[in-house]
Amino acid sequence: MSEFEIIRDIFAPLTKAAPGAFGLADDAALIDAGALVITKDMLIAGVHFLPKDPLDLVARKLIRVNLSDLAAKGAKPIGYFLGCAWPSNTKREKIELFAAGLKDDQERFRLSLYGGDTTMHSVKAAPLTLSATFFGAPPARGMNRRSGASAGDDIYVSGTIGDAGLGLMALRKELKFTTVDKASLAGRYHLPEPRLSLGAALAGLATATIDVSDGLLADARHLADASGLRAEIDAVSIPRSPAAASWIATQDNRWRAIGALASSGDDYEIFFAAPPAMRRSVTVAAKASRTEVSRIGTLTRGEGAVLVDENGAEIPVPSGGFDHFR
Amino acid sequence: MSEFEIIRDIFAPLTKAAPGAFGLADDAALIDAGALVITKDMLIAGVHFLPKDPLDLVARKLIRVNLSDLAAKGAKPIGYFLGCAWPSNTKREKIELFAAGLKDDQERFRLSLYGGDTTMHSVKAAPLTLSATFFGAPPARGMNRRSGASAGDDIYVSGTIGDAGLGLMALRKELKFTTVDKASLAGRYHLPEPRLSLGAALAGLATATIDVSDGLLADARHLADASGLRAEIDAVSIPRSPAAASWIATQDNRWRAIGALASSGDDYEIFFAAPPAMRRSVTVAAKASRTEVSRIGTLTRGEGAVLVDENGAEIPVPSGGFDHFR
Repeated sequence: MSEFEIIRDIFAPLTKAAPGAFGLADDAALIDAGALVITKDMLIAGVHFLPKDPLDLVARKLIRVNLSDLAAKGAKPIGYFLGCAWPSNTKREKIELFAAGLKDDQERFRLSLYGGDTTMHSVKAAPLTLSATFFGAPPARGMNRRSGASAGDDIYVSGTIGDAGLGLMALRKELKFTTVDKASLAGRYHLPEPRLSLGAALAGLATATIDVSDGLLADARHLADASGLRAEIDAVSIPRSPAAASWIATQDNRWRAIGALASSGDDYEIFFAAPPAMRRSVTVAAKASRTEVSRIGTLTRGEGAVLVDENGAEIPVPSGGFDHFR
Repeated sequence: MSEFEIIRDIFAPLTKAAPGAFGLADDAALIDAGALVITKDMLIAGVHFLPKDPLDLVARKLIRVNLSDLAAKGAKPIGYFLGCAWPSNTKREKIELFAAGLKDDQERFRLSLYGGDTTMHSVKAAPLTLSATFFGAPPARGMNRRSGASAGDDIYVSGTIGDAGLGLMALRKELKFTTVDKASLAGRYHLPEPRLSLGAALAGLATATIDVSDGLLADARHLADASGLRAEIDAVSIPRSPAAASWIATQDNRWRAIGALASSGDDYEIFFAAPPAMRRSVTVAAKASRTEVSRIGTLTRGEGAVLVDENGAEIPVPSGGFDHFR
């Protein structure tokens, strides 16, 4: 199986809807869409997914982690460029399974592949390394920025927090409690749900937005830093799924458990700020986009991001979030 | 050294010229350039560069192989998104050396970094894997396409062919002949010269263009295939550098040596077709862009790409060009 056969037989069919991709039979793609929001995220076997994860799920996760960035920016996704570095001697069936996952989510999110590069590592032990560059149209009111919030703004997060981190533990057989719904947690790790409708509805409403990928606390700090502020998060108001709640119930130290969830990665929710005067508008935006949104704290003068208890006292959290470099 | 420090200290300075990159402090970049030509090429240690190659040269090669795609399409480069998967425990100095190479070529080609992803492999033995998505403005006359040539069109190639392949052999100590200028050949392997001026000058003139990266014969076949034609290349007319000519002189079988050069990768020249009536215009375009261009054959009815001798007889060539999957 040659590189050209893989491109022609497996990947070119994914470009059918995009004339500017030229069926992957040119050196470059041509895109005429005025302004574009562009983002790039990589996934590496053993770092961002488990080496044994089914490749169709890995493909869909690759799409979704990138869509989550576009979602946070309020952009409407259009397509993507794909780079794959496969371990040597990867079988055609594996690449086909991967492409089947791409196709599923392309249809679900109305995307097209536009181009890319397909390569093989020189060694079999090299980890599958995936790189995708996604682009979309910015919202009419302008792209949601990470900076731009003011002291006193409320902070919010979509969905529930910590499920994917627990899902990863479940997949690694590190979750022993039979009372916890491991399958739903593992599902959150494998298949995040990019909050595209919510992100679009927040355009012109949120003063700052960020995609929660490194962990709620870490990304809250990134958003607060970008505006020179401090994020104070009410620990008890952090939204949690029934499965996460049942896991917290198994833990001796409740604050520590909540801190762990707020420090675990892969949530792919949107964390954002908006002035208190906009609370009703935020509720309307959440309803219109059929996305749960929780108000979880406030931006204040200062720096960093902290969890506070019911009395406003800071809860110590050991780790600052997920970081590939630790 | 955290991922955030690497981004803030080493990569963010590379975005100074691009307001839409937001200093790498947002989830996505915003680009407002009307139509864009976009391409993506990956480089993997041990496949596309030697694991011991200096990282500043690797960075510049990453830029140049992508610029070569834009050059073939006649596009004017604007910027790029960068994905790096470093072996675990990569030292800061190495990443800084890599970024210094990026900076050099950014200045040379007036580019900006716009975004990307910086990750580390979970294992030290994993090969450095680089992925870049480059974008540029299409030429006013429209992007040069790979398809669109007619039977009877002349075919041309820029620069000289086979130097990078010999350079790779030299770097691997596989070239024993003291009469051959190994340093200049190695230079062609490390630092290809993207033919941006020529590509732009060919807009509206060439009927089909392609970047020569897989080898002259392989890419000639790709271009011919795209128009449903056959490329017949006069073996003696293939341009060669003095160093390559001196290597050919060391070989027992001259045709076989020419065939090997036409099958070796990494030339990063432009191969293109134009009608015989445009010969003068091609000469003018080559002069205006200060790029050597050689007329090396004809497109005919049929399929494939072949080398022919002075009598028009086909010269057998064992391999169909460089392919990462072999």
